[in-house]
Amino acid sequence: MRIGLLGFGVVGRGVYELTAPRDDMTVAKVVCLEDVTLPDAQVTKDFKDVLNDPTIDTVVEAMGGLHPAYEFVKAAIEAGKHIVTSNKALVATFYDELIPLAQEKGVCFRCTAAVGGGIGWLSELERARRMQTIEKVGGIMNGTCNYILDSMTRLGLGYADALKQAQQLGYAEANPTTDVEGIDTWHKVILSSNVAFGIRLDTATVPVAGISRIQATDVENFTAHGLVCKLISTGKCKDGKISAYVQPTLVKQGEPESAVPANYNLITFVGSASDRMSFYGQGAGRYPTAYNVVQDCADVLLGKGFYSPCGEKVAAENTDTLCYYVRGGMDAWLQENTAETWGDAVITKPVSVEAMHRWLKDQPEAFIAALAE
Amino acid sequence: MRIGLLGFGVVGRGVYELTAPRDDMTVAKVVCLEDVTLPDAQVTKDFKDVLNDPTIDTVVEAMGGLHPAYEFVKAAIEAGKHIVTSNKALVATFYDELIPLAQEKGVCFRCTAAVGGGIGWLSELERARRMQTIEKVGGIMNGTCNYILDSMTRLGLGYADALKQAQQLGYAEANPTTDVEGIDTWHKVILSSNVAFGIRLDTATVPVAGISRIQATDVENFTAHGLVCKLISTGKCKDGKISAYVQPTLVKQGEPESAVPANYNLITFVGSASDRMSFYGQGAGRYPTAYNVVQDCADVLLGKGFYSPCGEKVAAENTDTLCYYVRGGMDAWLQENTAETWGDAVITKPVSVEAMHRWLKDQPEAFIAALAE
Repeated sequence: MRIGLLGFGVVGRGVYELTAPRDDMTVAKVVCLEDVTLPDAQVTKDFKDVLNDPTIDTVVEAMGGLHPAYEFVKAAIEAGKHIVTSNKALVATFYDELIPLAQEKGVCFRCTAAVGGGIGWLSELERARRMQTIEKVGGIMNGTCNYILDSMTRLGLGYADALKQAQQLGYAEANPTTDVEGIDTWHKVILSSNVAFGIRLDTATVPVAGISRIQATDVENFTAHGLVCKLISTGKCKDGKISAYVQPTLVKQGEPESAVPANYNLITFVGSASDRMSFYGQGAGRYPTAYNVVQDCADVLLGKGFYSPCGEKVAAENTDTLCYYVRGGMDAWLQENTAETWGDAVITKPVSVEAMHRWLKDQPEAFIAALAE
Repeated sequence: MRIGLLGFGVVGRGVYELTAPRDDMTVAKVVCLEDVTLPDAQVTKDFKDVLNDPTIDTVVEAMGGLHPAYEFVKAAIEAGKHIVTSNKALVATFYDELIPLAQEKGVCFRCTAAVGGGIGWLSELERARRMQTIEKVGGIMNGTCNYILDSMTRLGLGYADALKQAQQLGYAEANPTTDVEGIDTWHKVILSSNVAFGIRLDTATVPVAGISRIQATDVENFTAHGLVCKLISTGKCKDGKISAYVQPTLVKQGEPESAVPANYNLITFVGSASDRMSFYGQGAGRYPTAYNVVQDCADVLLGKGFYSPCGEKVAAENTDTLCYYVRGGMDAWLQENTAETWGDAVITKPVSVEAMHRWLKDQPEAFIAALAE
């Protein structure tokens, strides 16, 4: 396998290092806008040097972002090259177009590192689908949020201090919006649901609430009630009906999710035969992520295409009812749905996920967290 | 694939049910000593009916026990049939003979369900080995012990009551020795180390201590110090030196292992690139176990042989030093190695795993638990 590697940042450099000692794959060219000199690969600033090189059979995209990653990946598929990417935003956003295109062109498309970093999550879903129906996917898919929530819970930090610490440790970006508002998790649960259920989720029907409004007083409230707050994603398929959402969720102390420390992930599927299976590991970082990129390259060598069929376009119907912790935004709807009061917050009666997220849209101050089922 | 299924108990019946709707594999014959009538398979009491049937290409062994499972599996390999088994005692005990024989005869040998039941553990080790060196394997591999220890910790039960409850729920056998003395875990860590490190462990060099001597007062002691007791297996490979052992281990409250409830397993490897990866799921039960047996059959169809090369015979050198909680057996050696006192128990200075297990051999009453590194 001769690889054209797009991007030479954290993940790209890891891929270069992990492939270097291998006989079965070679990074032949690296597209990188900085000046880098590499002993074994040609470095270029022009993607066309990869695209037009007939000896390069596989493009590894490790640039991140939507553009020009989308244009490059699309052009590479059209040129008959296999794709390996760790870019969840790209795959979740352009799933509808890129996956059918890859299947039409007969090229492999792998993106295991896009969900769970070092966890072989999508490849395990592919394996699980051989034997059983997947009923549920989800869990803790973002290490930044878990680090912040864990620091607030275990060390009693406020949100701003916990975020600052995460940034100092390299667990959060200077602009943390994508992580803390749940967008990264949202991309990952959309992609996971697509693979698990063999569908194409209408992304506009998947609501997301992040953690940026959580305060130390909320965490004190949770601890006093034996609960731990985690940002949890959910994708479910029951009787052909799909539900999917991302929201802060309160799990009982002692549950596996409650014990996930620092920047780790814990991702779960429930299968008709295997029951609950969870995967715990590093959801990000140079070598864990590069590890699964290189695993994908090995699977391309085995001729593995995409993980599942690219099925029907489906809208999520989030009619599940849950009780929610809500602080702020008291109005007639919330008052009507209040079951009890916890300090300056309330616990709602069971309300549908869809209704809660619709209400939240008009609330610039409110913080919500679902009580786990 | 035409399957000869040996045994029609919990796992065997699950395999029959999960394969029934599939086009790619058929249970053609079932060897079973009870009178069973099946719509789609011939039932026989005589293994020779499977062995001598040239249309049967794969033998699924779901009888358990060493004999006659060993004789049947060996004869099937010699007859050129592929083997799928969930029998950890069989594979760990006869690894030296059966794995090389299967490789010599060019047949596949899969035993994913032998460790972790529904967890795709051995197959994930096989995948991990493609990309990296495995440095460590182990964890909570026995649901019976975890159920007993969890009930003692969370519900404050004594050992006898916790065991009785586990038996009533079907999580423990009438004779629980293999589970509670750690033998089942011992088989699993030997098999996992063999696969992970590409070796053949000398089983006589792997010490095991079980949980049968634990008392409610021990658990009170642990809880007072913020610790939770779990039966944990360890296999390590560092600078070519192997260590491997099974022992009750004290983990901090809040660590992932501490939160594993009921009869679940949590199994971990540490890889040079992926870092820590853990797998949480049902380590036993009809459908989880049968699920991985049928996954193995699918892998046989793909031509997958064994998980790793059958390397050198290696003796474990358990020179790691740990501090231990020890109740009972006070003598000169223990006194000399005592660092502090916890009620009627002591915490030792760091002593080697090998020295502690050697001492324990002559102590019919003492209970030990290692403090996790």
